[in-house]
Amino acid sequence: MARSPTIDYHLSDRDANVHVGVWDNSLEPVLTVEPGEVVRFECRDAANGALDVQSTLDNVLKKPSNGHPLTGPVRIEGASPGDVLTVDLLSFQHKGFGTTYFYPGERDAGLLPMDFDTGGLHVWDLEGDVGRFVDGIEVPLDPFPGVIGVAPATPGEHSTIPPRRVGGNLDVKHLTAGSTAYLPVEVDGALFSIGDCHGAQGDGEVCVTGIEAPMWVTVKFDVISDRDLSAPQFSTTGPYSPFAADEPMYATTGIADELMVATREAVRAMIVHLTDRHGLSRAEAYMLCSVAVDLKINQVVDAPNWTVGAYLPERIFPDVD
Amino acid sequence: MARSPTIDYHLSDRDANVHVGVWDNSLEPVLTVEPGEVVRFECRDAANGALDVQSTLDNVLKKPSNGHPLTGPVRIEGASPGDVLTVDLLSFQHKGFGTTYFYPGERDAGLLPMDFDTGGLHVWDLEGDVGRFVDGIEVPLDPFPGVIGVAPATPGEHSTIPPRRVGGNLDVKHLTAGSTAYLPVEVDGALFSIGDCHGAQGDGEVCVTGIEAPMWVTVKFDVISDRDLSAPQFSTTGPYSPFAADEPMYATTGIADELMVATREAVRAMIVHLTDRHGLSRAEAYMLCSVAVDLKINQVVDAPNWTVGAYLPERIFPDVD
Repeated sequence: MARSPTIDYHLSDRDANVHVGVWDNSLEPVLTVEPGEVVRFECRDAANGALDVQSTLDNVLKKPSNGHPLTGPVRIEGASPGDVLTVDLLSFQHKGFGTTYFYPGERDAGLLPMDFDTGGLHVWDLEGDVGRFVDGIEVPLDPFPGVIGVAPATPGEHSTIPPRRVGGNLDVKHLTAGSTAYLPVEVDGALFSIGDCHGAQGDGEVCVTGIEAPMWVTVKFDVISDRDLSAPQFSTTGPYSPFAADEPMYATTGIADELMVATREAVRAMIVHLTDRHGLSRAEAYMLCSVAVDLKINQVVDAPNWTVGAYLPERIFPDVD
Repeated sequence: MARSPTIDYHLSDRDANVHVGVWDNSLEPVLTVEPGEVVRFECRDAANGALDVQSTLDNVLKKPSNGHPLTGPVRIEGASPGDVLTVDLLSFQHKGFGTTYFYPGERDAGLLPMDFDTGGLHVWDLEGDVGRFVDGIEVPLDPFPGVIGVAPATPGEHSTIPPRRVGGNLDVKHLTAGSTAYLPVEVDGALFSIGDCHGAQGDGEVCVTGIEAPMWVTVKFDVISDRDLSAPQFSTTGPYSPFAADEPMYATTGIADELMVATREAVRAMIVHLTDRHGLSRAEAYMLCSVAVDLKINQVVDAPNWTVGAYLPERIFPDVD
């Protein structure tokens, strides 16, 4: 275990340090740092504090937030358009609980809104590295920021929902502690913000939420000038799978001439697998897919049909060692 | 290490045991087996023997084959439409060499035909569990059948190129030794065929070939009747990553409102990474992506932009431990 880094600055999640729902390069920096400095960010959850351990589906149906609350922006001295901001993700600390939820179909969010007339909610107890689902199912935690990015060059307000060239709502589950994100800088000082932390997420985040949780994130900034990136990149020490080693997986496939259709088919088959073989409700199955099932593009060249796989780590179930 | 299974039947790759380029439920079975029996198949490579260790790009440009040579079909007694054929993949043995190749853009094959005016070829020495690329790069082998399937119910000839509900050219890299494939049966006796073995492949198989290699494959058949599958499924003990454990990865992302576009962008960025940072030619980089870079759907819900990641295991390079 590496020693804890020296923290140069702390940023709380008080209103003055948080912007909600938009990227905007005219926002005043809440902090200015030098390259090499370390900041510990307090980040609200995606619901902006509207859900707690006693919340019910009714609270979800009121749609708890409109866009992500992000802590920042932080100005990094010396970062200029054309540079790359490197963000070393040093550590994460959750606060003991999290939520996974989805909306009824009419909200048109998530991968399968057409399949679900009602919404769903699971409130997770988070204890150390484990999140508790139903029926003894335990999902290993490996936290990361759903949203990590810098301000876009285009003036005005931009929704935090879609990711962009400068990052944002990437939802890359491998941006865990020990990883480094590389973000293309488009404005002076980069104007970095972070939030929407997930305790765990499957590749795809299919129901539209991971394990949404308020969290502390400690990062170190640097600036490099010899690289021209078309989109964010990152390095990671893994793990690729939740347990970081060989493990039994069960996988469904979707085969179709559009990747999105193949993805939907693979996830639908996994929902059937989870309900028929593991006794979950359909809503539970959808949420478990969103936090623990990984989507891979098995092949994208066997025209006209592509293969997408949905991978379930079987060790999350109590009856499997 | 498990003991070798008892082999009930051997099938050589002689012409009488091979059908090329088509699935057709009127093909006569070359063998009939009972559930529980084990067959060792000799499988030709995708080029149907047209390439060897002395082949050059000229041989590739003549397009070495039209569709996959498959060993089979094997009739499994008792398998009926509506059943599921289980295929335990027991072992694989290559024959010491393999090829990876792609065609010039006008052939319109692979993920990025528009980016490559010329084709490419790499002939691999296969030694035990390792395939040798250029510059000391070694790709770990974990063989699987690119094509594994049963005959479709629809009469007539069907190209082996696209995968279907009954399987076929799935190109799922995780169908390795120790895995089990579940295939929906559509005709009496299932009529199973197998071939197109790959020594290794990245998720995506982006240049259109993996490490194409003639190989022996040993499988055990069974039939189950209590499951209704919309597409093939499988269970696997991994590994998810080539080294089956935490390892350093470098990843590029593609962000776009179509998954195919995002996939192309991620792979293009990885090709730039491999040429700029590792000194490969563009053709080498494209082929290395096809055999060792994994594509994941990071998120498919942050409308209107999806995130696709391309993951490079850094341990394949000689300068990384």
